[in-house]
Parts: sequence; C-alpha cells; structure tokens
Amino acid sequence: MTPAFMPVGTNGTVKALRNEDIEKLNYRLILGNAYHLYLRPGTDIIKNSRGLHNFMSWKYNILTDSGGFQVFSLAHFRKIEDQGIYFRSHIDGSYHRLTPEKVIEIQSIIGSDILMPLDVCTPPDCSREQARDAVLTTTRWAEQSLQTWKEKVQYESHVFGIIQGNFYKDLREISAEGLCSLDFPGYAIGGLSVGETPGVYADILAHTAGLLPPEKPRYLMGVGTPDYILEAVQNGIDLFDCVYPTRIARNAMAFTWSGTLSLRKESLKTDNGPIDEECGCYTCSHFSRAYLRHLFRAREINAAVFTTYHNLYFMQQFIEEIRKSIADKSFLPFKKDFLLKYKSKK
Amino acid sequence: MTPAFMPVGTNGTVKALRNEDIEKLNYRLILGNAYHLYLRPGTDIIKNSRGLHNFMSWKYNILTDSGGFQVFSLAHFRKIEDQGIYFRSHIDGSYHRLTPEKVIEIQSIIGSDILMPLDVCTPPDCSREQARDAVLTTTRWAEQSLQTWKEKVQYESHVFGIIQGNFYKDLREISAEGLCSLDFPGYAIGGLSVGETPGVYADILAHTAGLLPPEKPRYLMGVGTPDYILEAVQNGIDLFDCVYPTRIARNAMAFTWSGTLSLRKESLKTDNGPIDEECGCYTCSHFSRAYLRHLFRAREINAAVFTTYHNLYFMQQFIEEIRKSIADKSFLPFKKDFLLKYKSKK
Repeated sequence: MTPAFMPVGTNGTVKALRNEDIEKLNYRLILGNAYHLYLRPGTDIIKNSRGLHNFMSWKYNILTDSGGFQVFSLAHFRKIEDQGIYFRSHIDGSYHRLTPEKVIEIQSIIGSDILMPLDVCTPPDCSREQARDAVLTTTRWAEQSLQTWKEKVQYESHVFGIIQGNFYKDLREISAEGLCSLDFPGYAIGGLSVGETPGVYADILAHTAGLLPPEKPRYLMGVGTPDYILEAVQNGIDLFDCVYPTRIARNAMAFTWSGTLSLRKESLKTDNGPIDEECGCYTCSHFSRAYLRHLFRAREINAAVFTTYHNLYFMQQFIEEIRKSIADKSFLPFKKDFLLKYKSKK
Repeated sequence: MTPAFMPVGTNGTVKALRNEDIEKLNYRLILGNAYHLYLRPGTDIIKNSRGLHNFMSWKYNILTDSGGFQVFSLAHFRKIEDQGIYFRSHIDGSYHRLTPEKVIEIQSIIGSDILMPLDVCTPPDCSREQARDAVLTTTRWAEQSLQTWKEKVQYESHVFGIIQGNFYKDLREISAEGLCSLDFPGYAIGGLSVGETPGVYADILAHTAGLLPPEKPRYLMGVGTPDYILEAVQNGIDLFDCVYPTRIARNAMAFTWSGTLSLRKESLKTDNGPIDEECGCYTCSHFSRAYLRHLFRAREINAAVFTTYHNLYFMQQFIEEIRKSIADKSFLPFKKDFLLKYKSKK
C-alpha cells in the first residue's frame, strides 16, 4: 500500500519503540543501515543470528540502505576508488573498504527484503564534473550490484537502482537512463533534501520523477517532513524514509496537525491537554503536555518513548490521509488544506 | 498480598517502562519521591493536574518517600533544625526548607496512598549522640506528621512511622517505642542497607523487626537485592522498594536465577540464548543476549527498556516464589536453594 513511510532502525531497532509498537502503528517495512550494521555488531554476529529479522525479532520487511550516504555523511575519512569506497569508521576510526559486491553480500547476510546498491553521494556545492563522475560510477556499481545479487542472493528480495546527479538535470537524465536500462524492479532518488531550497528540491524532484518508469515503485531517500512528502507524492513517489519523526521526538519536538510543538516550552508547564487534541494515540490518550514537558526536563527515557510513539502515529495517520485523498481524487485540495493548517503556527 | 516489591518511579515514571508494563507485571504499588517531585515539576504543577496518579496516568497505589533520605543523600547542603530541614536542591542549588507539616502537605497534593513522615537520616559512621538526636527528632516529627495528616488530609490514605537509630540497638528500641506508642497503621525501617556488612544488616534488621507489632505491615526502605530481601522476609518484612533492579538494568546488568549477568560481556557477542533460559518475560521471549549486548554497545534506548522489563519481571517472579514458599511453609528451604543457585556464578 503506497505511499508508505519507513521508520528508521539504524542499529537494528527503531529508537525508543518496540517492534509491537511499530506493528500496531501499521508499519510493515522499516529501514536498516548496512553501514552501521556492518561496523556494529558486524556481519559475523548477524550471520550467527541467522539475519537481522531474527536478530531484532522483526517479522515484516526490511529495506537496507547501502552505506553510500553514511560513508559520505558520517565517516571521518573517505576515498572514492574505481572499485569501491575506502573509509574510516565513525565509531572507532578503523579502516574499511566497501565494494558494490561486498555491500550486496552484507545486505544478503542481513537478509534485507529490499537491497540498495552502493552509490556515490555528492555534496550540494559539488562541481558538474565531480557530479558526473559520481553518476557514472554509481551506474557502473549498480550494474555490478545487480549482477552480484542475481548470482549470489538466493532468497526472495529486490534490488532498487539509485538515481543520483546532484542538482544537474542533465546528469539526472544520464543517471536515470543508465539505471532504467538495467531494468531494476524499483527506483530510488538520492541526493535530495540535503540542504537545497524548497524550490530546487521541487524542481529536481519533478524532473527526476519524470524520468522514471511509471509502473515501478519510486523511493525518495531520506525525505520525511510532511511538506516534502506531499510535494513528492504529487510527483508519484511511493516510498519514504527519514529519521526526522523519531529524531525530533527525542529532541522534544512533536508533530501536531497545526505544526510541530516543542515540548520544552515554558508555557506548557500547566497545560493538561494532549500534544494534539485531534490525536488518538497512546501518548495523547494518557499524558498531558505538562507531564511530557516534565519528563523531558527530568531527562526520563520515557520522554523519548512517548513522543516517538506519538510522532510515528502522526506520520502513519498523515500517510493514510494522503492515501485516502488519492483514492478520493482529492489529493491537491488535501495537500493545500493540510499545509495551510500545518504552517499556521509558524 | 505480601511480601511485595515496589518499583521506583522517582520522577513520576518508572524509568524506561510504561504503566501498562508495570500493570502487566502485576505491580499495584509504586514508589514516588516527594523530594524530587517537590523540586521538579513542583507541587503547583502536580496540583494543577489533580495529583500524581492523574499526572502520570497511574491508576493503582503510590507510596511516597518523605524526602528525609534524599535530602541526606542528594542535597548539596543540608542543616537539620528543630522545625525541619534546610537544604539546597541538587538540581539547581536553590534553598528550601521542609518541615514535617509541609512534607505531609506535599504528599497530600501528590495524592499518595501511603505517606511517609519527614525523618532524619544518619551516616553509617555517625556517633551515638548524633544518632540519638536524630531518633528523638524523627519521633517528634512523626507525631507532628500524624497530627497534620489527621487534621488536613481528607482522602483515604495511610501514614507509616519510620524507625531510625543507626546501628545502635538501644536507639532502635527508643525509636520503635516512641513510634509504636503513636499507633501508626504500618512501620518502616530506615537506615539499613547503607553500606554496612551483611552481618550488621541481619543483626540490626532482626533486632528492629522484633520491636514492631506483628499485626501491622512492615516496610524495609531502600532494600532490593534478592539476598537482602530474603533475609528481611525471614524477619517478617512485607514491603520493599529499591532502585536496584531498574538501575542495574540501565547499566546492562540483568538478573538471572543463577546470579546477575553483565550484558556487556565480550563472550555474549554470539550468544543466541535469552538472558535466562528459565525466564518467560517479553525480553527473553524475543531477544538474545547477543542482541541486547549490541543495543547496549550502540547506546540504544531500547537496551534499557528491554533489560528493565526483564529485571522487574524477574523481581516479581522472585517475590511470587517467596509468597508460595511461605504459603507452603517451605520458606527456609526455598531461601537456601535460591541463594545456592543465585550465588553459584559469583
């Protein structure tokens, strides 16, 4: 059922929630990070536990990111080579080399249902030449990844292609053309929502989405704010992942239908109302804003637990409203009304 | 149903668990700290929420500690005066004065089901004279507390007397005599498990318990290790509280029937077994030692959540086994067998 949002479980757990919460919230696909899991606990330990599903006791689907983005954003040192990426771990500074083949192998040990090929990410201010090299390498690695998957991965799974190309439309075209010719069962768009203006985001997103085969699933990587999701759904995006709902929750920021709310605000100290009057989640049914503010001030673990639950509940409701509006052919008015209200408090 | 263990919810939440967990684990009485709640969020906020039960959404019973021990152990500065205690907050250094009357008032705003009177705690190495002064003050304050409770607390609740007297048996006698003459509905024993040897603990405990009326509930404050609980049950103690099971859980230490287990141990890294083969808790039914070790290493919130759940499940099972053994008149063999196994790994 799409569109769908994937909660992020970087280290083999969705931070602060239990699998039964995630299941109850109707999420059936979560994201793991091959980069993190490869570094810690390591593939030996995951293999010894017969894969990540078993290790973390999650019976539904897992998509794993390849690590291309994490090496780009987290590693202390990285060097893109023809055959792969050489980098230092952000955890202990140890040196590692990831190749397209090895990254597929790692994800097959993890037992991912959807595997992502190793890609080359570029900074927002990168030169056209650098961005073009990244696209060419990403395409070449995608082909090698698909080949490795075909030869070595025995269980039922899928590999998606990742379109790169920075903010250069012609490079996005080159990337899409190269990957589409490889006939992946689904396509991801990388390199957006990395600090560009909303206008550039919308422009490159629309351009890139237009290059993809309409019958195949489209996954916009790392996007998770409501406004960006709406923009993307309008461009036919099916799948999203982002740490946003869970990370802001740990920082005391809660979704409401009229915008985000900081649970640290002094004005909430005697506020006996729920985070959002319209919300029917566990947190809103049991706890007041005043209580949640108290838990954050007292640095209680449950502050993160309750707020994360609320934010992932909100996100699922939001996605379900989108689905309904699509079914009703009322997506555009829904989008307009939602944004009017969501941005009203800002 | 006694004996019973009270999970500690210092700040109006049992750390890392939800009320529904606590309820499912068959705990019906938890402990809150008047000292902490008075300082943060403060009585105004709790009053505005119509008491702690409502604030934290807990429908069963709450016992609150008076703050005597917290002022003694946490405050940056304290001065025992005739009328009360003058101290500086451990949170922000602000100055406060607590009197017996005020402490009852605070707990009545909290809405505690069992209130504890303000007491004077003494260090293990304290002189006889200092300990005697503390006992006399504690007894005087207990009388004032009871009087305040009778005059001002309208809802159904109970106030317990707290026996002090350090490690001086004659002072324990003076304390018990003074408090028993006030006819409290229950008696607490304070000042034990504060660093003394097990022999001194057992000796003073037995002596003090022997001074209490057999028909009234006996609460041993701050005791929570299995061996100390067994010793206390043998002396007719009914009620316990301790941060031990929840605090050690956050530090990766789990109960097992053959002793505590550090979940950080290198040797667990490929251990696919549960924390304890004999345990039927949620954590042990879903997660391996290897996985929990991974969560602790990755500093995941769920490491604390899952281990706390296990430890409070274990504690409840342990207490239920004690109850059964009492009903079966097999407490002493149970105690012996339990300790033999529990200490076998140490």
